[in-house]
Amino acid sequence: MVEIIEGGITTPQGFKAAGVHSGVKYRSLDMGLLYSEVPATAFMAFTSNNVKAAPVQLMMNDKSEKLSAVIINSGNANALTGRRGYEDAQTMQKAVAAELNLEPKTVGVMSTGLIGRFMDMPKIKFGISKACKALGVGRESDNLICEAIMTTDTIKKECAVRVRLEDGTLVNISMISKGSGMISPHLKALHGTTLSMITTDAQLTPAFYPTFQAILDDTMNMVSVDGDQSTNDTCIMMANGLAGGKPADQDPNFIDALRVLVTQIARTIAMDGEGATKLITVEVKGAETKEDAKKVIHTVINSPLVKSAIFGSDPNYGRVMMALGNSGAKFSINDVHLTIKGGDMVVDILDSGAPVFQDETSVEVVRMAMENKEVILQLDLGVGTASATGWGCDLTYDYVRINAEYAT
Amino acid sequence: MVEIIEGGITTPQGFKAAGVHSGVKYRSLDMGLLYSEVPATAFMAFTSNNVKAAPVQLMMNDKSEKLSAVIINSGNANALTGRRGYEDAQTMQKAVAAELNLEPKTVGVMSTGLIGRFMDMPKIKFGISKACKALGVGRESDNLICEAIMTTDTIKKECAVRVRLEDGTLVNISMISKGSGMISPHLKALHGTTLSMITTDAQLTPAFYPTFQAILDDTMNMVSVDGDQSTNDTCIMMANGLAGGKPADQDPNFIDALRVLVTQIARTIAMDGEGATKLITVEVKGAETKEDAKKVIHTVINSPLVKSAIFGSDPNYGRVMMALGNSGAKFSINDVHLTIKGGDMVVDILDSGAPVFQDETSVEVVRMAMENKEVILQLDLGVGTASATGWGCDLTYDYVRINAEYAT
Repeated sequence: MVEIIEGGITTPQGFKAAGVHSGVKYRSLDMGLLYSEVPATAFMAFTSNNVKAAPVQLMMNDKSEKLSAVIINSGNANALTGRRGYEDAQTMQKAVAAELNLEPKTVGVMSTGLIGRFMDMPKIKFGISKACKALGVGRESDNLICEAIMTTDTIKKECAVRVRLEDGTLVNISMISKGSGMISPHLKALHGTTLSMITTDAQLTPAFYPTFQAILDDTMNMVSVDGDQSTNDTCIMMANGLAGGKPADQDPNFIDALRVLVTQIARTIAMDGEGATKLITVEVKGAETKEDAKKVIHTVINSPLVKSAIFGSDPNYGRVMMALGNSGAKFSINDVHLTIKGGDMVVDILDSGAPVFQDETSVEVVRMAMENKEVILQLDLGVGTASATGWGCDLTYDYVRINAEYAT
Repeated sequence: MVEIIEGGITTPQGFKAAGVHSGVKYRSLDMGLLYSEVPATAFMAFTSNNVKAAPVQLMMNDKSEKLSAVIINSGNANALTGRRGYEDAQTMQKAVAAELNLEPKTVGVMSTGLIGRFMDMPKIKFGISKACKALGVGRESDNLICEAIMTTDTIKKECAVRVRLEDGTLVNISMISKGSGMISPHLKALHGTTLSMITTDAQLTPAFYPTFQAILDDTMNMVSVDGDQSTNDTCIMMANGLAGGKPADQDPNFIDALRVLVTQIARTIAMDGEGATKLITVEVKGAETKEDAKKVIHTVINSPLVKSAIFGSDPNYGRVMMALGNSGAKFSINDVHLTIKGGDMVVDILDSGAPVFQDETSVEVVRMAMENKEVILQLDLGVGTASATGWGCDLTYDYVRINAEYAT
C-alpha cells in the first residue's frame, strides 16, 4: 500500500525549497527555506525542555494554524539568548514575510547549533534574502535544504512515500530531519524532536493533531542518542491539499504511510547518533502497560553501560537486566525473556532468571550476534500484553570526541 | 572537632580484616573479610534496583540487627543467578560462620563483578577459609581488604575520623568503599550504594537508622558516575561499642563526624569514576524544595553532553542550562545564576537569561576555570531557599574503552 519513493521535501505538489550559505558557519550551507505555494495546514510539536529556544517560544506564542514557509538556520541555536534572542527570531520571521509577501505569522522559524550566543543578524538577513531568491523544486533543491540544516549529522535524513487514499486520491508525504546529538525527546503531550519538516499534498484539518501526536510518540519520541533533550526540538508538518480529494484525517492509508515515513526517519536519526557505529533497537512486550514498556526502553537505551557494551560487542547482557531493574516497570524475573538479534542470529539469553550461557565458549555466540550494524534487544517482561519499540545507538570514542570539542 | 586521621577499617577498636586471593580473579586479591570481636549493631542499606543480586536478597531477608562479620568477593556479582545464586550466597554465609564459630545470620555477604555468571564455589570456599585464617589488625590488613574488593577502581577508597562525643568518649569511625562504574544510587528510602563498609567503636542503637539513611541520602546517594544503578549496591555500618560511653545516636559530634567521613568517600568515588579525569561538583541553591535541588543535580551530573564538555574543558555552558531545563525542577530563567569554579577561578556565566560571554576571547576565561581537576558548577534557581550538593565525573574515551571491553 505504502510505497517508499525516491524523493524529497519538494516531492509533494506545490512545495519549494532552498539551502544557502549565510556566513554564520565558515563554509558549509547554514540556512534552509521551505515554501508552499498555497497556505498549508500546519501541525507543530516542540521540545518539552523548560529552557526553550527563542524560535520555539515564538512559534508557541504564534499558534499558527496555517504556514506558508519555514526558515531554518544552523550554526547558532538562538537558545539562552533572552529578550534579544526572541526579537531576533521575530526579525527572521518578518524578513522572510517581506521577501515572499506573506503574513509574518505564516512563517515558521527553527534554529540549531551552539547554545548561548546571540545571532549574527546581518549574516542571517543576508542569508534569508539569498534563500528566498533560490527557492526551487526537485532533487537539487531537496538536497540543498537537507544539507543546510545539518550540524554534527553525517548522513542526510530524508524519506518520501506515496499512498493512495480510500477516496482514490494519490498523495505524497515527505520528511527531512536533522539531529545527531542532544537527542532524547520526552513523553509529554505535544512536543517535538530534533528539527523535522514533513510536507504533504494531502488535505488535513486541525482535527488531525491527536493522530500526529500519537505517531510522534511511537516514533520520534522513542529515539534517544544521549538522553539529553534539546532546547530547540521542533517538528512541523505542512499539508497543502494540492493533491485534491477529501481530508485525510481519518484515512487509514494516510496514517499508515505517515507512520512508515516517520519510523524510517526515527531509525535513521538513531543510526546517525553522534559517533554511532551501530543502531540499537529495543523491543519490549509482555508489559503491564505501554507506559511501562516505554520506561524499559528509555532506561535500556540510555544506559551508558549497555551502549558501550554494544559498541565493543561485549556480551555483557547482565547490563540489560540491570537497566530493566532500574526502569521502575513491573516484571516477573523468572518469566523475563531476553533475546538478542543481530543479522541472521537470534539468541535467547535467559532461563528462569539466570543466563543460559555460562562459559566463555557459549558466550561467543552472543558476541557474534552483537557484531552487526543493527543489534535488536527483545525483552518480554512476562506480566502483560503491552508492547513498544524504541531506537538508540552505541556509545563510542567518537561521541566523546565530538562533544568534548563542540564549541571550539 | 572532627579529626581526619591516618587509619583504615581496623582503626576502630575490636575490628579485624583480611584480603586474600581465592582464584576467582586470575591474579589480584578478590576476597575480603571484616570481623568484629564482639557482635556489632548493624545498619544496612541496599540498592533500589528491582533486579537485586543474590547476596542483597539474602541480607534483606535476614534483616539482622547484629553482625559479627562481612564477607565480600570481587570478580563475580552473583547477580542474575536465580535460585542457585541465592543458595551460593547462603553457602558463603555458612562457611564463614563455621570457620569463625558464629551464627550464619550474623555474617553479611557482598559480591561485585560480572553479572549473570554462577559463582565458582570451590574457589570461593577456599578463599573463605584462607581469609578467616588471615584476619589481622593494622595498616597492612586495612590495605589488603581495600584491595580485595576493588574491580575497575584505580584508587583505594578509605577514610578514618576520630571525634570526641559530648559525654567525653573518644570514638573512631572508618569507612572503605569500592565503586567506579554502574554507579548512580537512587533516591528511595533505605537503599545503599556501591560496596561500602563503615566500622565504629562507638555505641549505637537501631534508633540511629533514620540518621544513617539521611546521611547516605546527602552523600553516597548524590554520587553518579554513569546514571546506572547497580544490582549489588550495599552499605553496611557496624558499631561495636568498644570505645565505651553512652549511645551516640543523637550525639551531634558523632553525626558530624560520620557525615564528614561519608562525604569524603562519596567525593573519592566520583573522582575515581571509570575513566574519569575530573571531579564535577554540582551545588544547587535557591530551589523551591530539596527534592528539586537534587533533581537538577542528577540531571546535570548524568548528562553525557555536560560530562564530555567538561572532559574537553569546552566552555559549552549552554548544556548545563539544557540539563536544568530537562530536570523538571522549578526555576525562574531570568533569575538563574550559573557560576563555574575551578581552582582559584570563579566565573559568573549568566545575566538575565543570557550568557555574559559572547565572543571567543571572553569565553577563554571559562575554559581556564574548566581546566582544573575539580570543576564546580553552582546553580541558583532563584525561586526558593532549598539547596543540595552532588558529585560526578567527566565522560572520557577511557570510560568507553573500559566498558566496551569489560566482560572480555
